Amino acid sequence: MSRYWNSRVKNISPYVPGEQPRDRKFIKLNTNENPYPPSPKVIKAIQEAANERLRLYPDPQCTELREAVARRYVVKSEQVFAGNGSDEILAFAFAAFFESSGGSQNEPILFPDITYSFYPVYADLWDIPYRTILVGEDFSINIADYKIPSGGVVFPNPNAPTGIPLPLSDVFSLAEYLEKLDKVLIVDEAYVAYGAESAVPLINKHGNILTVHTLSKSSSLAGLRGGYAIGNSELIEGLCRVRDCFNSYTVDRLALAGAEAAVSDAAYYDEINRRIVATRERVTKILTNDGFIVLPSAANFIFIKAPTKTSAAKSEPCIGGADLMAALRERGILVRHFNKNRIADYLRVSIGTDEEMDAFLKACTAIIGNIGNTK
Amino acid sequence: MSRYWNSRVKNISPYVPGEQPRDRKFIKLNTNENPYPPSPKVIKAIQEAANERLRLYPDPQCTELREAVARRYVVKSEQVFAGNGSDEILAFAFAAFFESSGGSQNEPILFPDITYSFYPVYADLWDIPYRTILVGEDFSINIADYKIPSGGVVFPNPNAPTGIPLPLSDVFSLAEYLEKLDKVLIVDEAYVAYGAESAVPLINKHGNILTVHTLSKSSSLAGLRGGYAIGNSELIEGLCRVRDCFNSYTVDRLALAGAEAAVSDAAYYDEINRRIVATRERVTKILTNDGFIVLPSAANFIFIKAPTKTSAAKSEPCIGGADLMAALRERGILVRHFNKNRIADYLRVSIGTDEEMDAFLKACTAIIGNIGNTK
Repeated sequence: MSRYWNSRVKNISPYVPGEQPRDRKFIKLNTNENPYPPSPKVIKAIQEAANERLRLYPDPQCTELREAVARRYVVKSEQVFAGNGSDEILAFAFAAFFESSGGSQNEPILFPDITYSFYPVYADLWDIPYRTILVGEDFSINIADYKIPSGGVVFPNPNAPTGIPLPLSDVFSLAEYLEKLDKVLIVDEAYVAYGAESAVPLINKHGNILTVHTLSKSSSLAGLRGGYAIGNSELIEGLCRVRDCFNSYTVDRLALAGAEAAVSDAAYYDEINRRIVATRERVTKILTNDGFIVLPSAANFIFIKAPTKTSAAKSEPCIGGADLMAALRERGILVRHFNKNRIADYLRVSIGTDEEMDAFLKACTAIIGNIGNTK
Repeated sequence: MSRYWNSRVKNISPYVPGEQPRDRKFIKLNTNENPYPPSPKVIKAIQEAANERLRLYPDPQCTELREAVARRYVVKSEQVFAGNGSDEILAFAFAAFFESSGGSQNEPILFPDITYSFYPVYADLWDIPYRTILVGEDFSINIADYKIPSGGVVFPNPNAPTGIPLPLSDVFSLAEYLEKLDKVLIVDEAYVAYGAESAVPLINKHGNILTVHTLSKSSSLAGLRGGYAIGNSELIEGLCRVRDCFNSYTVDRLALAGAEAAVSDAAYYDEINRRIVATRERVTKILTNDGFIVLPSAANFIFIKAPTKTSAAKSEPCIGGADLMAALRERGILVRHFNKNRIADYLRVSIGTDEEMDAFLKACTAIIGNIGNTK
């Protein structure tokens, strides 16, 4: 705490990202990075952009990148916003579409109690009132719970860190409900490449749907910082207005070049992401066979709980989430634990290569017992 | 305007950056870019960083870059913050150190009436009350005017778009005054490489000084998006807290690599920036000889007014700022005009290469008459 901090900075609780180790070599299954390299076309595009034109500002409109996104999703480029990762876009979207307290009596925005833990952080940053809606016992989102007066809704599809997808019909019906309230539905599609249905085809039917996408996961470019949002042009203009009150150029020339190449190389990425899904299914089967609880994932991670103690109450695992994470770390494997009500027994495990996941399964065996040997 | 925008986005007036033409080739003297290419070491560092590790998130702490800045300025790395250009850092600094209205009766922050036009935009974004302080008839900042109760002070040194530097003794005495109020003085040193005195040596004496720096101008890397702030570690921690409520990783792996190389190659940049100063002095002399008003600049731009009409009142130029800008544009030269009280007759002209500036002088001659021919 400093006497120079204002009340905002004193009161906020920053988001804590997963560890990025700088020295010791770990198998990194903790931040949902893609285990496969980016497309060679991306590397080439960046190499070419590393030239003397770096002395000039980038295109603040990110025109070529937005046009590439528009081609890929068959939308108009004015329906596309490009930003410095989906986190930045979410921060702008909260600032643009969700009302701050500011003395007036606003309805709170809604998001699930178990979800991306950055949402309450954004809400606090912009002083936006919010209310969390409990996910079910099975961790699924019940869309009926969101059809109440609110300041808007945000959730990921598939949800994080559970990985559970929501049917598009649910997204559609909630958007319809919110449209009558003039409120926005932000669908955070960071992980949509791994099995959930994208809401992009709905944006021309419902002008209040903003889908948010990142290159960090399915495009294997977490180190590039690129993301985009797709929605009706008024929503996109709202994002531009906030961006232009903050930092006119958030996407640099190198990121623009790499992102455009990535968005344009669906063939390469479809292939590596198909492999990740195959690995996920294989690992899920092994863990389930060995008594782990594995939530049904449509993401590039799984959310798991260790097998139940034979002697214990039905739901008590033989090892808690924090302990299992620590034991895996000792064996050189990083996973993510959220010390949070309802999910403290669980771990989020990113899907790595088959070799990495075999090492993970072997470590689990060593920690718990017979995991992986029952095949 | 959209029914989905909240009151913030409806009411803000975004900053408008200088034009970045995408097709026709212009001599670009409108956004203070460096006319010389970045250091070859920067290009090489980026080329090397364009590898498969882009699949991994960057170091959110920007450790190596901050260490390079610390070495160069002989400060500690915990006294350094790195961000996506100085605009982002300023946006974070406003959010961290200047109090929002929020119902309570806060003193407004202070900045000059003629200054970087992004400051009122940031203030509105975060709902921070502000008051502008008139610069003198000669456009200089009178530091005594700022020694009044306030929520903090921000100005560039040298000031923009005037280019006029402020003596370090003035920065020192204002910081001393503000320290007693527990308020922060942000010194925006975007253009400090061109002749003004940096306040970095004061940060250990006054814990309330935050200096903000950009790689866009003096490091010839506007297209990379890199900047840093130097100040006491509590201020840096405040910036980190805001950043981590917004976007944990705003500086990508490529920008980190390029920025570190740039900060570490003072020899190259000292040389190109010395050339820019020499060109500025040469152009200033010619324009002054030809009757232009040229404010005394310590920046990589000059702020100029066309010669007085012989028939007219003393201060009326033979051509207004907007008209001169338009006439230069017709001749393929972009400069910046601010349609603003007190400075509407002026143009801000970035210093390009000698060849570019000769073309500029020639165009002025063609437009006005004898400019450049009197030598």
